[in-house]
Order: sequence, then structure tokens, then C-alpha cells
Amino acid sequence: MALQKTLYVGPFIHCRTLTTLDVCTSAVIGVDEYGKIAFVERDVDQSQLAVREGWEDAKVVSIDGSGWFFPGFIDTHIHASQYPNAGIFGKSTLLDWLNTYTFPLESSFSDLKKASRIYKRIVTRTLSHGTTTACYFATIHVPATNLLADICHDKGQRAFVGRVCMDSHLSPDFYRDESPTVSHEKAMACIDHVRSIDPTFDLISPIITPRFAPSCSAESLNLLGKLHGETGVPIQTHLCENPPEIRLVKELFPQSKHYTDVYDSAGLLTSKTILAHCVHLTPEERDLIKLRDAKISHCPASNAALTSGCAPVKAMLREGMTIGLGTDVSGGYTPSILAECREALFTSRHLCITNDTSGLRGKSDETKLSVEEALFLATRGGAKVVGLEDRIGGFEVGMDWDAQLIRLDVVSEGEDETLVNGDVNGGEEATFAEDVGLVDVFGHESWDDRVNKWVYGGDDRNTKAVWVKGRLVHRRHGVSV
Amino acid sequence: MALQKTLYVGPFIHCRTLTTLDVCTSAVIGVDEYGKIAFVERDVDQSQLAVREGWEDAKVVSIDGSGWFFPGFIDTHIHASQYPNAGIFGKSTLLDWLNTYTFPLESSFSDLKKASRIYKRIVTRTLSHGTTTACYFATIHVPATNLLADICHDKGQRAFVGRVCMDSHLSPDFYRDESPTVSHEKAMACIDHVRSIDPTFDLISPIITPRFAPSCSAESLNLLGKLHGETGVPIQTHLCENPPEIRLVKELFPQSKHYTDVYDSAGLLTSKTILAHCVHLTPEERDLIKLRDAKISHCPASNAALTSGCAPVKAMLREGMTIGLGTDVSGGYTPSILAECREALFTSRHLCITNDTSGLRGKSDETKLSVEEALFLATRGGAKVVGLEDRIGGFEVGMDWDAQLIRLDVVSEGEDETLVNGDVNGGEEATFAEDVGLVDVFGHESWDDRVNKWVYGGDDRNTKAVWVKGRLVHRRHGVSV
Repeated sequence: MALQKTLYVGPFIHCRTLTTLDVCTSAVIGVDEYGKIAFVERDVDQSQLAVREGWEDAKVVSIDGSGWFFPGFIDTHIHASQYPNAGIFGKSTLLDWLNTYTFPLESSFSDLKKASRIYKRIVTRTLSHGTTTACYFATIHVPATNLLADICHDKGQRAFVGRVCMDSHLSPDFYRDESPTVSHEKAMACIDHVRSIDPTFDLISPIITPRFAPSCSAESLNLLGKLHGETGVPIQTHLCENPPEIRLVKELFPQSKHYTDVYDSAGLLTSKTILAHCVHLTPEERDLIKLRDAKISHCPASNAALTSGCAPVKAMLREGMTIGLGTDVSGGYTPSILAECREALFTSRHLCITNDTSGLRGKSDETKLSVEEALFLATRGGAKVVGLEDRIGGFEVGMDWDAQLIRLDVVSEGEDETLVNGDVNGGEEATFAEDVGLVDVFGHESWDDRVNKWVYGGDDRNTKAVWVKGRLVHRRHGVSV
Repeated sequence: MALQKTLYVGPFIHCRTLTTLDVCTSAVIGVDEYGKIAFVERDVDQSQLAVREGWEDAKVVSIDGSGWFFPGFIDTHIHASQYPNAGIFGKSTLLDWLNTYTFPLESSFSDLKKASRIYKRIVTRTLSHGTTTACYFATIHVPATNLLADICHDKGQRAFVGRVCMDSHLSPDFYRDESPTVSHEKAMACIDHVRSIDPTFDLISPIITPRFAPSCSAESLNLLGKLHGETGVPIQTHLCENPPEIRLVKELFPQSKHYTDVYDSAGLLTSKTILAHCVHLTPEERDLIKLRDAKISHCPASNAALTSGCAPVKAMLREGMTIGLGTDVSGGYTPSILAECREALFTSRHLCITNDTSGLRGKSDETKLSVEEALFLATRGGAKVVGLEDRIGGFEVGMDWDAQLIRLDVVSEGEDETLVNGDVNGGEEATFAEDVGLVDVFGHESWDDRVNKWVYGGDDRNTKAVWVKGRLVHRRHGVSV
């Protein structure tokens, strides 16, 4: 379905490198009828927009007020089915959390009506947070997993949708595949379904999803590895999240050199594998992952919540590993990648606090992430993790228009008009006549300051509109684009 | 000014003890014309509200939908003047952060117009986050500090407003009191001003505010200690935030036993002293603080951001210390105490990660805070820190009605009606016709679950209305109370 050619006019920001932003304060980006970026014109005098040949009838979307276009976020690890449990985890850690909170909820997705309600909500929510691409774990149920693929397709979110394979060990009786063969067959059924709605996997891709080694038999892992070899369909799983889990894998797979080797031996460790967490990798495991060019999803909110640990992200980046961010709902409490950026920044600071025995806190650029680095992980890093670095994560000619319109509102100079407090006596109209969100810009802020304020203080209220492949997939109430 | 007697009808929740909530699912709380709780009736059949004698003409405020009344939050440490820098701190740590970001901004509060714009905004913001009591650091300027007191008084926020005293050492030339005597005189001038607008310090209290030892001369500290002795006005300052600061104090005050002793020797360590941070106290210092019954403001967001460290809150609670939460804007990025609860929960988990060398992560109830404990710190704990535990922090007869109305919206059963996605072709009306906030309740959640979802996922959108001493001081657009 062809789109109307569109000119996006105004400032844009994206990541130039891991450590630097490219802030273009006045630009025109032309997006063609296929949702691809046809040209990027920088330093444009917006009062004298020259009309390009062939773009005379293009729609124009201009930034209104203090804002910018930013690449859509990429969530490289999220359990769509666990969304109703977001924020509910008590003082649990990984293995008891699975049994107490997770498996009971996931098993209820045999109810398609329930699945529909939850999946629609989480896809709408992630879109509203600016997530244009998500790697979803569903449940073991084929119909519900296929429904999630349908919902992403309908709502226009780019997604990797995985039926969870789990057939042994830690899998409870009430929630497991009947056998390795059934795991394999059901994985194929979900691949076939996605092929039926999106034959080239252009927007929606299936993804082979062994839950993690402790809930899979060696036979099932081998069958899934074979399936990957035959189809080229990507893989997602969990790796080295917490110490008891790692010890358990050692017991369950005594013949393996280490946890990473369990996947590698089964043909599941390739350049198309996304490994969630990787908090406690040994140097040997890191070397193997690099050798295979497998990818890492860093999930700091979840790792803090379940006290799994602090993944040494900067050290892994220095070693050349490919890393993106994952919200890991509902180990993570939030489906927002912007909030996850904050968590990544704070986790890296906690690592700095922990590592520092010299008393010279904060000298350590070796552990602290910068805002720029966090945003890189959330966009270009994530794009590389999902193998789409040529199509998404930045604004380059030939890439898809997966973007969000960010706006911060400037506090008025005079009386605080947009913030009128209610008064018990006067009965005036109440605070925040328009809900401008939490970020207050006073006018003195540089572009860098504004980006910092957005990352630390912003939320979905600053994401005014979201596009995937040029299609408008979300806009806030009252925003016209 | 007398208020209309009001009956607050619906569920309420407050902290019973440090570790338990009191959830009353159906109650009537009567608040008299002085804003005090006259009675609390539990387990009320709301369809047959009996009319009490003398309350026939009372106004009725009922919970509409899925919500509850909750005590207002108490922010025991916030720099109102630093609000424009919220989220802007880069990779700095305390001492360079002060010079790079803080002193230049604070010094500009000689401009009263600027001060007015910022102070109005931050007071309105904190109210909208449910903060009914705040302990503010202002700047060294008397007129701007007095203006902050006026603004709190007008807007109805209970506040402790302190002019910052700083006359030596780390204080830059462009931003310091001229002498210890001037520090003392200006402190008195601000006390006098508050007395002129609120003679009994009923809503607004002055607070003696030596910035911290590294920016104060011994003479100035002594004069302020004397002022406290003469007036009984409370004190706020910083203590043991990061190691370089502690080393600096050791150099500057070689005659003192330790950092805490610097304040104690000056008569500044009493039961009316609020000590922000206390990340790195020695056992001797903790003993002295307990002996003096001084209070602690825990500021986890700031301590993580500036890599100051993780205060061992549970250990200090076990020792019987009195602790509340502080946002410490702008070391902290957020003026929300709800967000600060989250940060306290995560900081305690990071401490658990750090301390645990056994690999048995998460067994450690000795460091992990619970949601109940975080909420206690935010309400009853804070109340005790500011010396008002008999008046605020819970819903008991005789206490003031300092409260917030919390509401979480339930996701509809059918199609997700409240979340209609915009479509590029159809041009439908966009997402979130009413902005219900980020917390999604699906209906299966217990009261505990709802509280957990609120703490981890909620924001100002869930705080529908706020009262201080029975006066409505904030309500969200469209909320009628």
C-alpha cells in the first residue's frame, strides 16, 4: 500500500557514533511512498523551502514548538505476555520469580480472549513509548502467538514474534511443550503463520525462541538449532542472568564447557542470535559470543529488580560486542525504552560505585555510560542486534522512516499559565490544562541539555507521534501531523 | 479561614508500621473546618451512609473508579533553585558538579523575576506529584528565599524554607555570604519574614541551612548553632555524601573527630536537624547521630546519579535511625517522591548485589527494601524527620488532612477503547483520548498488586487531587472533587 510522499521539516537528532549525537537543527527529510528516506537536506532555511522536483504534492509534517525527530526505539527483549505483571515481583529472584509470578500468568494464554486484551494493550503501549521495533517473547501457545503477530501487523509495529519453546527441567507440568518434537512443530507452525501474513518478513518476522537452557531438553535445543540452520529464522533466548541459574545449567548440562556452549553446541549461537541479559559471562564465553557474532540485549531494570547483577556494558562494548536495550517486561517494570535508558545509565553508575575501592568515585569513564551511549544502545545498537542496521536506527538515505516526534514544552515567561493550581475556594479550573509532560524547559538549555532532560525526565507524553516505515502508528491526543 | 467540613468516602491506604500497609477498602474520613481528621470510620457500607450529627451539611468527596486516598508525600530534601538543572549532570561527581552546574545557576537568583518563574513552577510540580510537605534549600539571596516562602504559602504547600548559608572554603567568589555575621543576619531576616506571613510556623517554617561544612567557616557554623539554640528553628544540611567531600572536611576541620562532629561541636546536631545523604557514616558517627536524635534524608536518585554511593538504609533503620526520602533536585533528576521510592527500592537492590559475594543473591532481606518500607519512608518516616509525626504521614484522628487521591484505570474488557491508535489512512482520533497514565490494571490484581503497580509504574497522572490541611491544592484537569 503506497503512502503519500512526506517532507519532515524541523530539527532532527540521531546517533552519529556510540559517543556522539548528530544534532541537525534545521532539516528536511523526504520520505517516499514506500516509507523510505529519499533525501536528507541539512541546514535548511525553513522560511524558503525549495520545492524539489517530484515532491511538489508531498505532505509536510513540521515540528511545532520545541522538538525534534528522533529514530524509533528498538526493544530487543520484551515478554508481551507478562505485561499484566509489570511492577509485581516483590523481593523475588529469577528462579522463584518464574514459578511465583510468571508461569501461572503465561499458562493462562490458552484463553485467546485474554491474550487479545493483553497483547493489544502492550503493543499500543510500546508504540506510545516510541518503540518502533520489538522482539517479543509470547507464550507456548500457537494461537495466541499468532494473534500477537497479527496485532503487531495491524497496528504497524515492526516485530519479531517468538513462540516460547520449553519442554523439560524447570518447565512446570501445567506449562510445557509435550515433547521436543512438539516444540519443533509448534515453532514451525508459528513461522508458517507469519509467512502467511507477511511473506517476506518485511514488517513481522518469526523468531525461534527456546526459553532458556534450564527449561529445554538437549534434544529440543538441537531440533531448534536445526530449524534455524534450515530456515535462517533468527533466535532469541536468555543467557547468564543470575548465579543460581548458571549453577543449574552446569548441573543440567554437565557435558557443556559453559552456559554459552549449551547453545553453541546446538547450533543456536550465530550472528542471528539475541542473548538477553549476559550479566555474568566469563571471558571464554565472551570470546565465543564474539566469534559467532551473536548479539546481546542489556536489560538493566530487570537485572536490578531481581538483583541479578550489573552487566558490564562498557567493558563489553570495548571488546566489540553488539548490544541493544531490552525492557524485559515483566522482570523489568516498564515497557518504555526511554525509562530503560535511565536504568542503563544508573546501573552503569552503580557498577562504578561497586568497582571503585579507591575512593575516587566518578573518575571512571570505564564503567559510566553517557546519555549519548544509552541512546545509541536504544537505536543503532538495537538495530544491529536485530540485524537491521541498514534499515533502522538512524536517518540515512535509503533507510526506513521509523521515527518519533519528540516535543518538550517551554515554561512560559510570565505567570505560570500552563500550570494553574486549583483552589478550594475559588474553584478554578485545575492544573495542567494541557498535559505537557514532566520535562520543563526554561529556555537557557542547549540542545545537549534538552536531550539530557528528555532522557532523565521525559515519558510517553513527550512522544507526540510515531511512524514505522513511513506509516503513522501513534499520535497523542490533540497532536496533528 | 474555615473550610467546609468534608467527608472523604472510599478506600484508603496508609502505613501501619515500617513493613505493613493498612488497606481499608471502604471508609469514611471526616475532616473538620480546620482541616483536621475528626473521625475515621472503617468498613462502611457506602450505599447506606449514616449521617453523623453535625455533619449533615458536609461536602462529600468520593473515590470514583479504582483508587484510594493516600497520605501526602514528604520530600525531606530538595533544592528548589536547582530545578532548571534537573537531569543535567553529565558524568560529574559532587564537588565538580557544584562548580560546573550548581553555583552558576543558584547565583542567578539575585534576579527576582527569574526566581519567581522557577519557584512557582517547582512548587506547582511537587504538589502535582503529591508532595504535601517539602524541605527546601533556596539560595543565599534573602529576597528570593522570602519569595519562595510566599509562593508555598499562597499555593498551600507545607514547607520548610531555608536560605543557604555559605561563607568560605568551597564557596566561589561570585556566590557567597560576605562574612559569618552576614550569614547569621540574613538567616535571621528570613526567619523574620516567615514569622510575618505565618506567625506560628503552622504551614511554613523557616529552617536554618548551612549548606555543608566545606562551604562554611567554623565561626559561621557556631553562630548558626547559637541561632538554633535561641530560636528552636530547625536545621538542614548535608553530611557524608561522597568520599572526596569527606576527605576535604577532614582537611578543613582538622580539630574535629569526624564530619558529624563538625556540626555537633557547633550546636547544629540536635533532634531538629535534617542530615541529607549520610551515605558513608562511620559507626561512631551513627552513634552520635542516634544520641542526638538527628534525622536522615535518604536521596537515592542523587546518590546514584553522582556515583556518591548507596546509603545502607535498612541497616540504619535496624539501628533505630529516623529516615525519610529526599528528591535532592537537581543532584536527583526528579521532583517526584513516587519516583524516589522506586530509586530507593533499586538502590537497596544494588546494595544487595554489591554485598553478595556468596552467589546467593536475593536471599538478603537485610538490604532489600520492600514497597511498604519505601512508602513508609515517603510518609511516616518523612513526617518524623520533619518533626510532625503527630500531624502528618497517616490518617489518624487529630492529624491534618494532608492527602492525595490516587486512581489507577482498569483496562476495559472489550476492544481497547481507551487506546485507539491513530492510522495514517483513516485519520482516526489518536491514542489515549483521556490520558489515564501508565499503570494498566487488568482486574485480577490484589490491593497489594495495585500498590506495587502504582509505585513502580505510576506518575503524576495517577495523583488526581492533593490536599494540605484540608485545602485542595492540586487537581488534575477534568477531575472533580
